[in-house]
Amino acid sequence: MVDLPDRRTNFVDWYLAVVEAADLTDKRYGVKGLNIWTRYGFLARRQLDAVLVREIEATGSEPVEFPALIPENEFAKEKEHIKGFDAQVYWVTKGGLSELDVALALRPTSETAIYPVFALWVRSHRDLPLNIYQIVNTFRYETKTTRPFLRVREIHFFEEHTCQTNEATATDRVRSNLAAFRRMAETFGLPYLSIRRPEWDKFPGAFYSIAFDIPVGGARTLQIGSVHHYRENFSGPYGIRYEDTEGTQRLVHQTTFGLSERLLGAIVAVHGDAKGVIFPSSIAPYDVVIVPIPSAETRVAVLGAADELADRLRRAGRRVRLDAGEERPGAKYYHWELRGAPLRLEVGRREAESRVASSVDRLGRKGRVAFDTAAVDVTARLAEFDRALGERARSAFQASFAVARSLEELAKAEHVYLVGWCGSEECGHRIETAIDGALLGVPEDGLPLDPGTPTACIACAGSDGVRWAVAGQPL
Amino acid sequence: MVDLPDRRTNFVDWYLAVVEAADLTDKRYGVKGLNIWTRYGFLARRQLDAVLVREIEATGSEPVEFPALIPENEFAKEKEHIKGFDAQVYWVTKGGLSELDVALALRPTSETAIYPVFALWVRSHRDLPLNIYQIVNTFRYETKTTRPFLRVREIHFFEEHTCQTNEATATDRVRSNLAAFRRMAETFGLPYLSIRRPEWDKFPGAFYSIAFDIPVGGARTLQIGSVHHYRENFSGPYGIRYEDTEGTQRLVHQTTFGLSERLLGAIVAVHGDAKGVIFPSSIAPYDVVIVPIPSAETRVAVLGAADELADRLRRAGRRVRLDAGEERPGAKYYHWELRGAPLRLEVGRREAESRVASSVDRLGRKGRVAFDTAAVDVTARLAEFDRALGERARSAFQASFAVARSLEELAKAEHVYLVGWCGSEECGHRIETAIDGALLGVPEDGLPLDPGTPTACIACAGSDGVRWAVAGQPL
Repeated sequence: MVDLPDRRTNFVDWYLAVVEAADLTDKRYGVKGLNIWTRYGFLARRQLDAVLVREIEATGSEPVEFPALIPENEFAKEKEHIKGFDAQVYWVTKGGLSELDVALALRPTSETAIYPVFALWVRSHRDLPLNIYQIVNTFRYETKTTRPFLRVREIHFFEEHTCQTNEATATDRVRSNLAAFRRMAETFGLPYLSIRRPEWDKFPGAFYSIAFDIPVGGARTLQIGSVHHYRENFSGPYGIRYEDTEGTQRLVHQTTFGLSERLLGAIVAVHGDAKGVIFPSSIAPYDVVIVPIPSAETRVAVLGAADELADRLRRAGRRVRLDAGEERPGAKYYHWELRGAPLRLEVGRREAESRVASSVDRLGRKGRVAFDTAAVDVTARLAEFDRALGERARSAFQASFAVARSLEELAKAEHVYLVGWCGSEECGHRIETAIDGALLGVPEDGLPLDPGTPTACIACAGSDGVRWAVAGQPL
Repeated sequence: MVDLPDRRTNFVDWYLAVVEAADLTDKRYGVKGLNIWTRYGFLARRQLDAVLVREIEATGSEPVEFPALIPENEFAKEKEHIKGFDAQVYWVTKGGLSELDVALALRPTSETAIYPVFALWVRSHRDLPLNIYQIVNTFRYETKTTRPFLRVREIHFFEEHTCQTNEATATDRVRSNLAAFRRMAETFGLPYLSIRRPEWDKFPGAFYSIAFDIPVGGARTLQIGSVHHYRENFSGPYGIRYEDTEGTQRLVHQTTFGLSERLLGAIVAVHGDAKGVIFPSSIAPYDVVIVPIPSAETRVAVLGAADELADRLRRAGRRVRLDAGEERPGAKYYHWELRGAPLRLEVGRREAESRVASSVDRLGRKGRVAFDTAAVDVTARLAEFDRALGERARSAFQASFAVARSLEELAKAEHVYLVGWCGSEECGHRIETAIDGALLGVPEDGLPLDPGTPTACIACAGSDGVRWAVAGQPL
């Protein structure tokens, strides 16, 4: 049995303990920040990726894969961008026994790999929009403390890159990405805020950045993804031009949409409890675990019934784990609760005879699943479970926020705060100093609570252009 | 229109032209041997991977993912292995602006990344067998001529690594891998030989290696995968031990199974023809392409009928491409023949009225697909197509081999040759010199033709221990 730290008072230690105890990762690789995707962790990631792929392809984006190695000269073309990543890049300098003529960056992100080729792919307005995505690993030489899924040096990464005809159609693509992420997050029962980052915290090279943030206890927040409008900032240096319907050469406007394995970390962080991980059914490695409870006399009948039930559910597309090992049932319950299996079905003598299994979901809610209607019954149990899990997360989400009316209040760092902000960088930095964190920016799509109209900037007390902004301590 | 080189007389140029013309890859990335997976190429790869995953997981192997970066000290532990890869490794020596304390190898293969961790995972006979696989990219600093899919510097790679209790159970795993590959290759209609490599051509560090080879014109062959028995060659240096049922500590016996994007190249190479690529239905990006042929008066009816047909097939799980663009039908036929779509359905006025589409498969065989039974009809057409494609490949495969009775015959290099071989390394090298290629080894599972019992070694004329071996010119 693993003793997990208290989640409420000691969130980070709880998180670190639970991802290892639940066998989602193995940190015992020889290099700090390079972790192993264990079998169980990999299966969760595969489910998660399948949801991303489904939702992004529904918006007309198509998969590609560009090389992981980027020649130094291409990497350096967009000045802000290279400045932003300089300190974080791994460089390949040797091939075999000799020095390379041109050093190769191990991609930290793929703008500089993809855009020279976009310049070849885009010729005419008929080539637009160009919406492509890839799911690849990226690499960052992190100097901060690394944590599984949240900050690692090899990152499982989703990145969409698009070319659009002009600023307005690029803005449409940004909106389409925000909507796609909303659908993904709903699937995971994950409440979040879309926040437009202040100027000084944009992605290096972006015109503007909208990030998705979640509260993870006290004032702490976690950025779980972002969408960027690049305008012509990259198409200029990389020469990505098209001929419009009038025959004029124009630079494309570009957007990107990025997500990473951090999303898996966020799901663990948000839904987990004192017993361990809780997976929404869409990404659980096994959405149904069947535990047979045989006695010496009932062994054949009970195992046979459990087999039949597993088989029926598998044929209906369920990811079933039949745990027929020799451990006591209690040990198995503990094992699968720690690992976050959404639904457990128990089959003992009584259940085998009546052909109705007892069900317990990971929130402890009991029910029944009849063998003959098992596929339908399990679908109903899991839908109820996902709904309850999402509601629980939404309540906790709303309770995480508070309105702060003074810089002193921010210093308590008991919540993530809504603050009145005049929009000036100077006031922004004063807010950041007060909370010892970041002014995350102005929410795009509504606030988590209803504080009325903001009247004064929390820093300068000015009332001109004041809006509600979010301040927190990003992990 | 693209003019493809003649496949028979100029195979390599035909191959290079067809993979680009069919839009499977883009070679215009800034670094030699690092190519781009285009949208169409990526979709083919995704289908291919799905078959590998299905077949390998059916044998009880589970997915994991280990880091891409391997610390130099771990990389160097198995002496033969490091010797074999030394000249091919990309080294990361810088992180951000500073030199790394320990250089990191960009994995050329993952033995040295995985085995230190296997030493932690394996404790007891109850942990065995341990069968895991990963699909990742590997990196090799190739100095030979690079060719898309066949020899590249970033390689899309499948690698299974297993730990078994002893030499015999490891041999069983090798047999299980050979059977899994047979099932995969059958799905792709790809005939091949399983050949046990001679001692001097084993995988660096292996006890023995069995490779899968295909003939690709004249004496040329292509290795498309391999299975290795490592015995205790790696478990010794990496200390992978288990306690057996008697309480004794023993080293595990290990096996690996490797495949790569070369398999996709092989499918293109084997099935393609003068018109372009031919994909078996299992890996075609689109298994059905629908071409509507409207006139001004029939436009609404024809496009409506094509839509209905596409919709019916999609709901049945088909990967349908409805090509409703403005090009002439002939241009579309050409486009999809070049790209290897297995089945084309044409819908004009007559087809819309009768609700029966005309079908033409990529081998030119005509048929009909009724709208109301479209799913079943298309399944039948594709099954016939796959069968015919496989038979065609098998005939060509058998015609590629000949028996050689003298070293002079080998020099003609008109076929891949079966030769009598006494098993000595000296004679092996004489054979290799004669064919200006390689003695690939002794087939494991039967010969491609029936040359009777071998009587004399082609090199020394000795009759002791003579067996049929295969000699060719590996690409």
